[in-house]
Amino acid sequence: MRPSLPTSHDKVLYTPGPLTTSLAVKQAMLHDAGSWHWEFNDLVRSIRDRVLALARLSTANGWECIPLQGSGTFGVEAVLASVVPPDGKVLVLANGAYGERAVAMLGHHRTPHAVLRTPENTPPDPDDLDRTLAADPAITHVVAIHCETTTGILNPIESLGPVVHKHRRVFIVDAMSSFGALPIDFEASAIDYLVSSANKCIEGVPGFSFVIGRRAHLEATAGWARSLSLDLLGQLRGFDKNGQFRYTPPTHSMLAFDQALKELELEGGPTGRANRYRRNHEVLLNGMHALGFRSYLPPAVQSFIITSFLFPTDPQFTFDAFYRRLSDKGHIIYPGKISQADTFRIGSIGRIFESDVRALLAAIAETVRDMGLQSLAPTR
Amino acid sequence: MRPSLPTSHDKVLYTPGPLTTSLAVKQAMLHDAGSWHWEFNDLVRSIRDRVLALARLSTANGWECIPLQGSGTFGVEAVLASVVPPDGKVLVLANGAYGERAVAMLGHHRTPHAVLRTPENTPPDPDDLDRTLAADPAITHVVAIHCETTTGILNPIESLGPVVHKHRRVFIVDAMSSFGALPIDFEASAIDYLVSSANKCIEGVPGFSFVIGRRAHLEATAGWARSLSLDLLGQLRGFDKNGQFRYTPPTHSMLAFDQALKELELEGGPTGRANRYRRNHEVLLNGMHALGFRSYLPPAVQSFIITSFLFPTDPQFTFDAFYRRLSDKGHIIYPGKISQADTFRIGSIGRIFESDVRALLAAIAETVRDMGLQSLAPTR
Repeated sequence: MRPSLPTSHDKVLYTPGPLTTSLAVKQAMLHDAGSWHWEFNDLVRSIRDRVLALARLSTANGWECIPLQGSGTFGVEAVLASVVPPDGKVLVLANGAYGERAVAMLGHHRTPHAVLRTPENTPPDPDDLDRTLAADPAITHVVAIHCETTTGILNPIESLGPVVHKHRRVFIVDAMSSFGALPIDFEASAIDYLVSSANKCIEGVPGFSFVIGRRAHLEATAGWARSLSLDLLGQLRGFDKNGQFRYTPPTHSMLAFDQALKELELEGGPTGRANRYRRNHEVLLNGMHALGFRSYLPPAVQSFIITSFLFPTDPQFTFDAFYRRLSDKGHIIYPGKISQADTFRIGSIGRIFESDVRALLAAIAETVRDMGLQSLAPTR
Repeated sequence: MRPSLPTSHDKVLYTPGPLTTSLAVKQAMLHDAGSWHWEFNDLVRSIRDRVLALARLSTANGWECIPLQGSGTFGVEAVLASVVPPDGKVLVLANGAYGERAVAMLGHHRTPHAVLRTPENTPPDPDDLDRTLAADPAITHVVAIHCETTTGILNPIESLGPVVHKHRRVFIVDAMSSFGALPIDFEASAIDYLVSSANKCIEGVPGFSFVIGRRAHLEATAGWARSLSLDLLGQLRGFDKNGQFRYTPPTHSMLAFDQALKELELEGGPTGRANRYRRNHEVLLNGMHALGFRSYLPPAVQSFIITSFLFPTDPQFTFDAFYRRLSDKGHIIYPGKISQADTFRIGSIGRIFESDVRALLAAIAETVRDMGLQSLAPTR
């Protein structure tokens, strides 16, 4: 690639993360913090407490927030590698790539597991889960993906969790792209472990994930961890010991996250943030439908986090050309990840507003004209 | 802690990383990059090639640089979790915390292993290694730590590697705090895998480690990985497939690392950087000895990366008070990690110069006076 003249602002990311963050979040990284130093570790303590507060939890009530180096996937794998006993068995509720990724982790660990699969546009059915758990007493843990970023589908953890709870199994929720914006009630959803990451709805930069879980539950997992780096109890004990990450933390990502949490609070917390994201999503969906595009999911299960659109049937359409033209106009969309349909995705999260979405829609309209696309949606 | 007025510059880190970085390195993070976008992935490709070039290697000669999310420990564990066959056995040459950490990883993986331990001030002996390998044909892999940051000792990989090679075992080198400054000859040291990280001698910010290894060797490890996130061949195949990290990369850390590599080149590459670090170390060592402190290691095995100093014997001395007083003067030193002696450590790496070291020495002299310390070194 020919080097290009730097522009005055970055292309806007309509992606599920890494996403566009505020300038102040990035400016918070203009400092070098010592990972052993008390000032940094006071900040880590504060971040852990404030994340719990977002979920209306606290250490006083027995909960812990455990940040872990790496991407969100590392956090999910840390839970699966740490809290499942050697004779445990895990049931994964899968309707997309992130459910399948949990299955792949269990395969790597040689951990017995089962999969309850539904089509990518269909949430798991609590009654199916009930029957599966009743039929297989060997299952000790159940994994659900809250918002499957593969499609943008919202899985009903508040209906699934009580079923898991009724059968006295452990409920693990991958809330990567939902925590911080979608309301999550730990008690009503009977969540034992939840995983999310810095660079999603809290609008930090990548570098770490975090796990929320009960201390007493975690302390009962001693000796089970299949990995040192991903040892969740080990990580907690490191914080207990001296307030520090066991291994080098992403100091700059933590500084950015501190600022991101402040800005989340300024926006009215998860409720305020949800309002902006929902508005972004509505403007996007209405605008795309008005242009003639068709979204993939039934409205009842569509989250406001990310939306999948079917490829236009016009033979002139290629995703690559469409993507590059939008990129040239300063907008970065996201490819599809669905196995059952050709789609592209547009995210509504990150530091983007209705005005950005409208600019994207204008750029898409222009691109449709420039490419001479006629039929934008497959007939039903 | 009471919030304090921000200063015009950060406290200087005399630590083994995260370390003080240049302002330009941090400013490179004032951008949000799309992890799927070609501009970012062109940069990743370039970074991988330039890291290989630092080691005078290239993909044309069959080598690969594989960046991995997380700290350096994650990189070491990725190698141990990925390239050791199910019936393999690993010998660890341990004379400090990082050797012991590799042992802990193998314990978590339930991988058979042996440990050749030497005291923390003594490098492993190539003849001992020779005898150990001759006596135990089950050993398939040998792990050495190049610069043991625990003490600052330099282990002679150039004498150990040929012994490993003679016995046709695989040689894995943890070069976390040496790569980019200490000269490393892959051929002479018969290195099969080397691990380092972004926030050490290349002077980037934390967020990822990287592994250098032979493609053909890695491709023979299919099916062995004990973790999905830490699957080294999986990570390489992800890059092969579409140039992307399999899972969310620390985009900002990568942007910073690109700038850090440019600045390393400006400084004359690893040779130029080594000159600055060596000078920092010499000024430090001479200055500390002149003040009356005593360093822990024999000069013959002391690296110029980080130096351990024995605690003063004066009963007025506590490390906590000493550390806090230096911190108040704007200098962050590092605690000791040695089990056999009470020490503190001072690093010579990062964007620090002789002038910084002299300022630190003046602050230490002042602190010694303020604390009324008389006897600074134990008698021999």
